[in-house]
Amino acid sequence: MTQTLAARLAEYAGIAADLGVGAVALVPGANFTRALGQAFASHERPFLLVITADGRTAALVPNLELQSWNLLGFAGQVFDWRDQDGYDTAFAGLIAHLGIRSLAVEGQVMRVFVHHALRKAQPGLEIIDGEAAISGLRVIKTPDEIAAMKAAIGISERALERVLAGVRLGQTEKDIEQSLILALFAEGSEAHAFAPIVAAGDNSALPHAKARADYHVKAGDALLLDFGATKHGFAADITRTVFLGHASDEGRRVYDTVLRANRKGHEITRPGITAHEIDDAVTGVLEASDFADRIRTRTGHGLGRSTHEAPYIIRGNHTPLLTGTVFTNEPGLYQEGNFGVRIEDDILITDKGCISLTSYPTELQVLKC
Amino acid sequence: MTQTLAARLAEYAGIAADLGVGAVALVPGANFTRALGQAFASHERPFLLVITADGRTAALVPNLELQSWNLLGFAGQVFDWRDQDGYDTAFAGLIAHLGIRSLAVEGQVMRVFVHHALRKAQPGLEIIDGEAAISGLRVIKTPDEIAAMKAAIGISERALERVLAGVRLGQTEKDIEQSLILALFAEGSEAHAFAPIVAAGDNSALPHAKARADYHVKAGDALLLDFGATKHGFAADITRTVFLGHASDEGRRVYDTVLRANRKGHEITRPGITAHEIDDAVTGVLEASDFADRIRTRTGHGLGRSTHEAPYIIRGNHTPLLTGTVFTNEPGLYQEGNFGVRIEDDILITDKGCISLTSYPTELQVLKC
Repeated sequence: MTQTLAARLAEYAGIAADLGVGAVALVPGANFTRALGQAFASHERPFLLVITADGRTAALVPNLELQSWNLLGFAGQVFDWRDQDGYDTAFAGLIAHLGIRSLAVEGQVMRVFVHHALRKAQPGLEIIDGEAAISGLRVIKTPDEIAAMKAAIGISERALERVLAGVRLGQTEKDIEQSLILALFAEGSEAHAFAPIVAAGDNSALPHAKARADYHVKAGDALLLDFGATKHGFAADITRTVFLGHASDEGRRVYDTVLRANRKGHEITRPGITAHEIDDAVTGVLEASDFADRIRTRTGHGLGRSTHEAPYIIRGNHTPLLTGTVFTNEPGLYQEGNFGVRIEDDILITDKGCISLTSYPTELQVLKC
Repeated sequence: MTQTLAARLAEYAGIAADLGVGAVALVPGANFTRALGQAFASHERPFLLVITADGRTAALVPNLELQSWNLLGFAGQVFDWRDQDGYDTAFAGLIAHLGIRSLAVEGQVMRVFVHHALRKAQPGLEIIDGEAAISGLRVIKTPDEIAAMKAAIGISERALERVLAGVRLGQTEKDIEQSLILALFAEGSEAHAFAPIVAAGDNSALPHAKARADYHVKAGDALLLDFGATKHGFAADITRTVFLGHASDEGRRVYDTVLRANRKGHEITRPGITAHEIDDAVTGVLEASDFADRIRTRTGHGLGRSTHEAPYIIRGNHTPLLTGTVFTNEPGLYQEGNFGVRIEDDILITDKGCISLTSYPTELQVLKC
């Protein structure tokens, strides 16, 4: 984070030039935070940072945020607007100031009301989805960013240890979820990277299950925990699946299959490999097993300021992955009405291959509870 | 929540008819959760629920969520898509099935990539921002919803009590923020309604301040805490400003002014009053004081599944407010480089007038710490 604000903003001017558009517009979210070196929220208020291909900058700022904004040392023109007055005049001023014909926006972040306000201010403005290029600047992590992710992962793993030590038969999924949440914040998490998943028995078969207040965990259940702390604005994302009291033969075989797929991801990852090749190899292990009909998901996704970001680790994504990329390696097998197993690590690509930032053991764990 | 899924979806068909469009489309968020009776997340994957003006329903569902979706008892056609295949075919299928020319969307929630995917599937599709009408269905709270909000507020107030009892001179804002977070989850919060604000001294003058790790609170500081628990998916939003050790004369006068404005909001709120009238009266108290140059914000916003939702309590909003509406009454005064004071309650409009769901005392509090 030693880059100056001007140097960071210049990167987005480069993106605009590469995309052949007049400017790039950012709205509050991960790219906005990265560009400014500070997080802002927008809720229902439009808030825009614009960087033109020729290196000019401008912003549309809710007046409520103007004091905070002025601490940034931002050199560009600012069009602030007050709730009482609405934002049409600010958009008109911004658009007149910019003098552009096309604009790249973050399609995954900008909401339709901002898109409509831009079009109202300049009906002919061509708005393209520049998400891939704009968020592409976040793929390679700096040493500071990796340190933040390690801290978030450390918090998550210490929390997991505390939670698993306290699991008892007869607790509800909600009980275990609550103890996970408390452990995460007690260990120093800033926020949830995403709504944690705590799912036992048949609920573990839903990739995005919600904890139930009326399901009491019982001997033989698979218990899947998928969650992550955040630290300094960066996310962890880890999943472990354990068995309570004992594991069935089927449970052991499914677990072993998922673990082999997970290990395959670790083995083959090195600089230059494509996302396609990783998913193909990892999912290939699952497909070659007796449980191929239980595959529901791709191998993983990039991880950083956002819990889900590029690169997506999926067949068809032929992007080569470079040193400094962090992604989740999270194969799983899920059978509706029965159970699911997922094992998820956060992998950092290094010059020599890769390391797992997550270090919580992945061997089959049967809790005595 | 005793309404059936079909009855809830019929309400959105009514909205489409009222707006004169072919259908309403919802994406994951508060309206989606209300419509389906269950929360879904979407992250980077498009996920759409469509209700036509003539009462047909359809959905575009990430395959990953299909098992969860199938538990809903949804009667409409489902177009699911797998990560490996992308979503263009599903959008094309959905659009062909619907046979509509215009669509109302939630402008505050739908992101541009979904808007682009809809337009790609049907280039002539007219997409209008139906946010106000769609989210308008959430303004009047049911008894169950009010009970959930009371629970969230109770958690928040118990957490506040614990935190204030532990504040000591020399702690950093970050220390106090951490103790607030732990107290919220220990009291049973499901999540943060929003990133909590803990700001002392000059930082309290920023309406959306971030806690500092390097600022140690000192005698005479104003300490502003703005935060909220959630319970059963509903948010609390409460602010109290206290003084540490002692309060200056200026601090007392500013506090008294804000408290009079806050009380004015309680006094005048009754069914039929407009948002404009409330803001006019509350902000009017601040304007009539010696501190009129310290006004930065409107009086408040609706509160429910979202922390910020309609009705916005601001001059110019002539919407009459009806029984069952919940909104924040949060006047404040802020002087850059000096300090700020905000006092925020959550107000429920009743047949006879209003009640405050927040009950934590608002009288000036000087902490012995």
